[in-house]
Amino acid sequence: MLSSLPSKVTVIEVGPRDGLQSEPEVVATAQKVALIDDLSQAGYSHLEITSFVNPKWVPQLADATEVATLAKRRPGVVFSALVPNMRGLAAALAAPIDEVVIFASASETFSRRNTNRDIGPSLDAYAEVVQEAQRAQKRVRAYVSTVWGCPYEGAVALSNVELVTERLLSMGVYQVSLGDTIGAATPLRVQRVLEALLARFGHPQLALHFHDTRGMGMANVLAGLDMGITTYDSSLGGLGGCPYAPGASGNIATEDLLYMLGEMGIETGIDLDRVIHASQRMVQVLNRELPSRYLRARLFAKNGQCF
Amino acid sequence: MLSSLPSKVTVIEVGPRDGLQSEPEVVATAQKVALIDDLSQAGYSHLEITSFVNPKWVPQLADATEVATLAKRRPGVVFSALVPNMRGLAAALAAPIDEVVIFASASETFSRRNTNRDIGPSLDAYAEVVQEAQRAQKRVRAYVSTVWGCPYEGAVALSNVELVTERLLSMGVYQVSLGDTIGAATPLRVQRVLEALLARFGHPQLALHFHDTRGMGMANVLAGLDMGITTYDSSLGGLGGCPYAPGASGNIATEDLLYMLGEMGIETGIDLDRVIHASQRMVQVLNRELPSRYLRARLFAKNGQCF
Repeated sequence: MLSSLPSKVTVIEVGPRDGLQSEPEVVATAQKVALIDDLSQAGYSHLEITSFVNPKWVPQLADATEVATLAKRRPGVVFSALVPNMRGLAAALAAPIDEVVIFASASETFSRRNTNRDIGPSLDAYAEVVQEAQRAQKRVRAYVSTVWGCPYEGAVALSNVELVTERLLSMGVYQVSLGDTIGAATPLRVQRVLEALLARFGHPQLALHFHDTRGMGMANVLAGLDMGITTYDSSLGGLGGCPYAPGASGNIATEDLLYMLGEMGIETGIDLDRVIHASQRMVQVLNRELPSRYLRARLFAKNGQCF
Repeated sequence: MLSSLPSKVTVIEVGPRDGLQSEPEVVATAQKVALIDDLSQAGYSHLEITSFVNPKWVPQLADATEVATLAKRRPGVVFSALVPNMRGLAAALAAPIDEVVIFASASETFSRRNTNRDIGPSLDAYAEVVQEAQRAQKRVRAYVSTVWGCPYEGAVALSNVELVTERLLSMGVYQVSLGDTIGAATPLRVQRVLEALLARFGHPQLALHFHDTRGMGMANVLAGLDMGITTYDSSLGGLGGCPYAPGASGNIATEDLLYMLGEMGIETGIDLDRVIHASQRMVQVLNRELPSRYLRARLFAKNGQCF
């Protein structure tokens, strides 16, 4: 093990979208823009900055167009945004967005509750979105949620994951990010899913999107690295999490991920200290602690010995 | 990777000692006894229940003899306790303790600050403790702290770890638990240390004692499992942590560990629900949240969806 880890990894920062979307309070547009500017300077190649979903469903990100317009652009930093449908795509295409991201599900119930559609019709609708995005010269990335379990159905069949991934890639999506929506995956299950998918798809077509709900985040990343996966989604400070559970964790924290990768000699191009700077400001803005273990260790190390 | 994981693992619960020792408030003796009783019923084969150190240094565990005397014994559950010297050993031998645990350091500065002695003299003194314990038919386990870094010195030479481990095993200690005192280890560094030690010592002679300070706990356990190590120390709820850092993590949480092991088909004999029950009571006793991610997910899952 660990003898053939990738030497380079792409970390996609999803905090401004996936993180802020889960916040109970709406963050001011200026603060979102400042956050994205902080992150742009940290060395990321890819930031998922917002979501063009109906503000009725996600009021936290109702200012998507404004955020995308106001955020400063740095060469080499791709801005992506979530789009649920053709209307969202039209709004994204009218804004300075480089890539669009669609979100499918491997669980029927989750698909119905999250997109108001069964898996099949949801994918049919996305085919048109992808086509239209490509006509506008935009790459499309996709999430598959509930890969390692559904909050409504429990276990999710691997065959569903394979089918949905296959359909997304065949409609022109360049990469599918496999989401552990409920944070239930463990390394052996990560390996099993990847073994099945890597038999049919290439490594660059697959990314991993883990949640740290049960503390498995970094162990699952390690399993992914060992299987050769080189793209991971994460959120600064572990921003996001469960609005009902103070201190509970959602997305894996970028800081924890960067520490592990950096210490193992895996390059990301991202400056951990700058990410911490961004997280510290979010701690102020949100007026609460963020769940990242590494961030907490760094913030508290100043106040006293911590070992 | 992950193809040859051990099928069985021993989890040593150190919460009553390592956890409570780090608590800023002294927990009442009756509560400690109730905790140990809870844990005895959970299926552990080994509980580190207290420490016979000078109460001047660790007032939290001044009631060691009382705790050991009052805790109910269940067949098959080994009770161990920390002893710093001959005086501590005498107190431990006078109490119903099955095993004693000594603590050495791989860092000179840490050794001086933690035991008031350089590494060499500290080991010399322990040789007498081990001899005397063995004369009383007690097995001796040992910690080596600062294996992956020292809060005072930073990096610690692997040769120090090897020397200290060698000396402890040769004086009759049956197992050395390698401690990541500051929670700085990452999987690759875990692997490197184990590679060096396993070239000289057997798997059962080595255990792993990780801290989750930077969120690396479960990834490091995975690295340990992959190297064939079958004994891990953990603390219920992640009890302990840094007294200066609310919410910061110390020992890896037993719940997170049991979830990962259980989901990967690795047997421990321990009932996760009973551990959670014990942790829930400690949440009440300490009147604060505990850092275990898994515990939080379970406690909050009752209040709302959390994904």
